[in-house]
Amino acid sequence: MVRSAAELSTAIQRALEASEPRAGGRATLGLVPTMGALHSGHASLVSTARAQNDVLVVSIFVNELQFNDQTDFNRYPRTLDADVELLARAGADIVFAPEATEVYPDGRPLIKINSGDLGLKFEGAARPGHFDGMLAVVAKLLHYVMPPAALGVPTAYRAYFGQKDAQQLVLIKRMVADLNYPVEICSVPIIRSAEGLALSSRNQFLTAEQAQAALVIHRALSLVRERADRHEPLYLEDVAGLFAMEPLVELDYFELVDPRTLQELAFNCQDTPFTGQGLLLVAAKVGEVRLIDNMTLGY
Amino acid sequence: MVRSAAELSTAIQRALEASEPRAGGRATLGLVPTMGALHSGHASLVSTARAQNDVLVVSIFVNELQFNDQTDFNRYPRTLDADVELLARAGADIVFAPEATEVYPDGRPLIKINSGDLGLKFEGAARPGHFDGMLAVVAKLLHYVMPPAALGVPTAYRAYFGQKDAQQLVLIKRMVADLNYPVEICSVPIIRSAEGLALSSRNQFLTAEQAQAALVIHRALSLVRERADRHEPLYLEDVAGLFAMEPLVELDYFELVDPRTLQELAFNCQDTPFTGQGLLLVAAKVGEVRLIDNMTLGY
Repeated sequence: MVRSAAELSTAIQRALEASEPRAGGRATLGLVPTMGALHSGHASLVSTARAQNDVLVVSIFVNELQFNDQTDFNRYPRTLDADVELLARAGADIVFAPEATEVYPDGRPLIKINSGDLGLKFEGAARPGHFDGMLAVVAKLLHYVMPPAALGVPTAYRAYFGQKDAQQLVLIKRMVADLNYPVEICSVPIIRSAEGLALSSRNQFLTAEQAQAALVIHRALSLVRERADRHEPLYLEDVAGLFAMEPLVELDYFELVDPRTLQELAFNCQDTPFTGQGLLLVAAKVGEVRLIDNMTLGY
Repeated sequence: MVRSAAELSTAIQRALEASEPRAGGRATLGLVPTMGALHSGHASLVSTARAQNDVLVVSIFVNELQFNDQTDFNRYPRTLDADVELLARAGADIVFAPEATEVYPDGRPLIKINSGDLGLKFEGAARPGHFDGMLAVVAKLLHYVMPPAALGVPTAYRAYFGQKDAQQLVLIKRMVADLNYPVEICSVPIIRSAEGLALSSRNQFLTAEQAQAALVIHRALSLVRERADRHEPLYLEDVAGLFAMEPLVELDYFELVDPRTLQELAFNCQDTPFTGQGLLLVAAKVGEVRLIDNMTLGY
């Protein structure tokens, strides 16, 4: 594990120089950014990135800037030793776990990333400032780990994010496009329980009865997906009615959006057969636990 | 001259592969971003960057986002043929002159750079949104030209900006630090007429009498600089009195600030001998022409 940007730089340099690139003489460097408290969803990200790259860096940093609630930040689980052990077993070459003083040496950055309308919708509406803070640290991490041209080892660069946090993924792709970051953003599918519940560290707070009720989320997504695959009208509002039949589940949003812009798509309320592509987003509260899930349609 | 990011990439690759690095086997790539309409101040930037780098890229792009006034944007001088000729003579290897559709393919970027308080002061107060728009394009250009690690030619990367636009330089250095861009930001001193007037494309709009009156700017800066060099109190308010003696010159601001944060320094109004470091900023209107100038103290 390395703590400082300088140590990280040296470690990346050594690992790239020691790498024996598989394909075409070009090394590949993968980054998986995390906030630690790793679970099976992260393990999937890490193992995908491990399989696809010669050198793998996983970062662990609980980024205060993306918490809109100080209490939430303070009680966020910190399990660094277990995380480092899990990552060693998963085959990460370098774990970068900087202190806040390394990432934000002058306190909050003076120059900020503004996610605009994209960051105000859906999860952004529930967590003001969250996405701007998330982008601030991703903008930095992508540069921290970027393979240095000064090294002279031909290297391709990729960063991995989970499809589970769909809006986060859209925002990161948009930032990389809008600021022309030289990195390929890769997404990794949602990992689900055998019954369909998307894995989340929050699932542990659900009672058995709540976990059972929460399966309605996946049922609803799957029903729409089947209609989309058959190019039928989606009748989203009807499907949303499934949630009303689960008194333990309180629906927040269930919306089909353009996966590039997060603009709501008109298929929501029309009889039109579905032919395009879309991202179906859902958030619901089950007891005190807020769950998000999503499904891509037409891919 | 290249127009697209793809052509730019190929041109940079070829130039780096063909380069015969002077020092230590590492090539150096320099970028000078401009908005065209090149004058002797730009020539100094270009010749400094030319002398210090193996491969030199100059960009020409009139960035609509940094104009707070549409008329101002429309009538901004566009002298591409003359610029390209000048740059060829000055030894630029690559001129990158993209169309707006290349830089902003989807119109205004959805993810923005927010310069915060730093961008609201001084010139930012006179031109709302200017610095956010400037940073948006610099954030992109630094990535467009960044030497690709994939190439495998060991390359150091530098970008050059004039000290004349001191606040712009502070903001760019701050962005590079806050977002951890892997680039060295180099500044090039102000070029002045024999009498001391800082070169600017706006000087051509001054009458002979106005140009004479405008010399008070340099006199005031130099007087403070002499006091600073002798570690005397600066008595800035007294020096500002010089402007009152030039009826053709209307002072906007004359402030000593921290060069990292643009915070006003207390030396402004105290009897304390000057011992630290500071950046002395001045803006004044001469007729319809707004002039800016500055001087670093204690360096």
